[in-house]
Amino acid sequence: MQTDKTLRVRHENTPEQFAAVVQAITAVGGNIISAATHHVGRHHIYRDITVSVRTEADVEALLTVVKLLPGVSVETVIDEVLRMHEGGKLVHVGRVPIRTQAEMREVYTPGVAKVCRAIQHDPGLARRYTNAGNTVAVISNGSRVLGLGDIGPLASLPVMEAKAMFYGQLVDLNAVPIVLDVAGVDEFVETVVRLAPGFAGIHLEDIRSPDCIEIERRLIERLPIPVMHDDQHGTAVVALAAANNLLRAAARAPAEMVFAQVGLGAAGLAVASLAQAAGFRRVIGYDPGDDACRAAARRGIQPVTFEDCLSNGDVLCLTTGRPGLLKPSMVRRGQIILALSNPLPEIEPVDALKAGASGALDGRTVNNLLGYPGLFKGAISSGARGVSVPMRLRAASVIAQCAEGDDVLPDPLSRKVHESVARAVASVASDPHSTLAAGGAFADDA
Amino acid sequence: MQTDKTLRVRHENTPEQFAAVVQAITAVGGNIISAATHHVGRHHIYRDITVSVRTEADVEALLTVVKLLPGVSVETVIDEVLRMHEGGKLVHVGRVPIRTQAEMREVYTPGVAKVCRAIQHDPGLARRYTNAGNTVAVISNGSRVLGLGDIGPLASLPVMEAKAMFYGQLVDLNAVPIVLDVAGVDEFVETVVRLAPGFAGIHLEDIRSPDCIEIERRLIERLPIPVMHDDQHGTAVVALAAANNLLRAAARAPAEMVFAQVGLGAAGLAVASLAQAAGFRRVIGYDPGDDACRAAARRGIQPVTFEDCLSNGDVLCLTTGRPGLLKPSMVRRGQIILALSNPLPEIEPVDALKAGASGALDGRTVNNLLGYPGLFKGAISSGARGVSVPMRLRAASVIAQCAEGDDVLPDPLSRKVHESVARAVASVASDPHSTLAAGGAFADDA
Repeated sequence: MQTDKTLRVRHENTPEQFAAVVQAITAVGGNIISAATHHVGRHHIYRDITVSVRTEADVEALLTVVKLLPGVSVETVIDEVLRMHEGGKLVHVGRVPIRTQAEMREVYTPGVAKVCRAIQHDPGLARRYTNAGNTVAVISNGSRVLGLGDIGPLASLPVMEAKAMFYGQLVDLNAVPIVLDVAGVDEFVETVVRLAPGFAGIHLEDIRSPDCIEIERRLIERLPIPVMHDDQHGTAVVALAAANNLLRAAARAPAEMVFAQVGLGAAGLAVASLAQAAGFRRVIGYDPGDDACRAAARRGIQPVTFEDCLSNGDVLCLTTGRPGLLKPSMVRRGQIILALSNPLPEIEPVDALKAGASGALDGRTVNNLLGYPGLFKGAISSGARGVSVPMRLRAASVIAQCAEGDDVLPDPLSRKVHESVARAVASVASDPHSTLAAGGAFADDA
Repeated sequence: MQTDKTLRVRHENTPEQFAAVVQAITAVGGNIISAATHHVGRHHIYRDITVSVRTEADVEALLTVVKLLPGVSVETVIDEVLRMHEGGKLVHVGRVPIRTQAEMREVYTPGVAKVCRAIQHDPGLARRYTNAGNTVAVISNGSRVLGLGDIGPLASLPVMEAKAMFYGQLVDLNAVPIVLDVAGVDEFVETVVRLAPGFAGIHLEDIRSPDCIEIERRLIERLPIPVMHDDQHGTAVVALAAANNLLRAAARAPAEMVFAQVGLGAAGLAVASLAQAAGFRRVIGYDPGDDACRAAARRGIQPVTFEDCLSNGDVLCLTTGRPGLLKPSMVRRGQIILALSNPLPEIEPVDALKAGASGALDGRTVNNLLGYPGLFKGAISSGARGVSVPMRLRAASVIAQCAEGDDVLPDPLSRKVHESVARAVASVASDPHSTLAAGGAFADDA
């Protein structure tokens, strides 16, 4: 995986010395991203030179050539990714700093007692006078994290922090990562129900299948606030948006197309279900596991062989966790391919296009960061219990519409996109004619 | 209780009209705190006039006189305390905003996978690369909130938010309020153990006695991070600091004095225990409940009658929740009185001093905001499991030393005070000769 390393290099403070360092790094294929002065001493200068590298061996090669230069030494090597995470990624602060005793007496005792009493008498006021109206709990047990598998609660925390920070940055929701050390579905559900009173929504993340489906279903039943498993619905919404825009570019309509889903874990099942609701002519799916196939069949997704998916899928979506599974020779001319496994896809999009695909994307572009912030903000602001099928369809359609120019998908860091999604989702959730109000909203999760 | 109300007054935009409004308010005893222009219209001006009032009847009186003025109307009445809490008191944001795809790929996938794997292989790295090293969970079930009693989890949330915001402002710790809907001690303990992996410390708050003592004890046993029930230890530390400084002002030493504690709930018991550890000649206590007296006796605090406390206590500390319990006629000449019940004390300090007390304070001054931030920061930064007796004694002594000039206690909003406390507490916790290392640290909680 491409990553950035920063070499803190000490050398005599002359332009020639710096040029020599740059030349040496470049000569062994090092791609310099930035060079900043860290410290200027009496005789030496310390520079932080950040280089994009592929492997640890590349770093060794860089170190070797740089150290060979006379008068140059490498003080330390800093991993830029680790540096970004140092100290954690979140800051919790008061909305206003408390500067005077008078303010202290308003936010804290004795003033706070008035707010407590008001909420005691009318619990609905908690949404107004506390963060219970705008704080999401991002919850995981770390049982299925990215492509890493079951790494446990603590090791999953960096992902939860990332999810949480984007809620703040993109849709102005507070979010709190909570990683749970629990055994099984019952303990998970029970624990979340107990800690839920102060939250506006429960964002479930990186939970293994089929536990995640059962946990989401039971929490929706038991809690009065929205609950959403992002790996299912966030992924499905963005995948559908991508498929729709690739079809539009190819001047074809979903109603004529077969959607084939390879991999029927939580994400794959959610993608296939949403494709079905979106009106594809037929949705078929393949998974080596019998349970997964049965779950798909219960949702009306026809289980078929891997080969059937390849030969019949006009849109071929893969969520298998198996890099390189799809060989270029397997790609059909005109096929649309979404190879979503992270960090490495089932086929590199560029190879799929060379092999004749009319469109191809991987998980780097079909990023569920595009989906969850607006989708869940919409659910929270409308007071929905979960993210219903109509809400998900609407989110996918708004995301697709927000793509600009030649882009298949919009920029996931655009606040405007997430605001549009949130507004649209909330309006669907509040619409008395939508499936949500009719009570059938979460039926696809049964 | 004194509180601020803001009248949004509309009147013709002339100085005379404003003067008339001010005069009318002042004439009925209204104390104007501020007057701000909210909006200037074509013919009228809208002013927000904030008045300090004692009762709702006062507000009615103000409204009546203001509305009687020709050309003047009151648009709305805003409660300043409620306004401070509107929208919740906390903001959670990313430590750095993510502006580019490259940064996104470092904090989120694929970069984050490296951090997850690093923590999976060495869980200790979570303290460095996540917020697990600097985030406190402020946890309550709302079973004993301020003077309000058992108001339940949701209604207790405003207090937890206040506690959390001061952690951020005063000692740079993130803090997350979590209110639990649990039945009994077992469920409480089990739930906290399950949600604890991502936190650096567990701050327990507003839990009824004796559950709070049992919950704290069991959590300290089961968790590898510090656990502290603030209503016990925060209160005790600040009360002892106040007692020490009042004694010093009276040129008397604890070793000659009897400390009498009236009220042996969680806070009272903790205060009495700490007074005992601090070397008072004798510590006696009174409580109407037999269980409370037995718990006190087990800690070596001699249960006596209320009258014995009055007649023998050189320092008389009250935590009864019964405003006005201590009549001026009961005060002995030269006695030091801490009347700590909130929001209304057992005796007004000014009345106690008039009756001959050599020093008297109430809970407004003996504010546990002075204690918990530095105390718990010290525990967290030293890796202690709880706040041991030596740590509490040291915190009390540093707080007392930080008082300036004639003040009995320092300003609770001073970051410098909390930093000094944190440093001192951490050094005690890390000292191999302290009781903590000897394993007897939390024996007083048995």
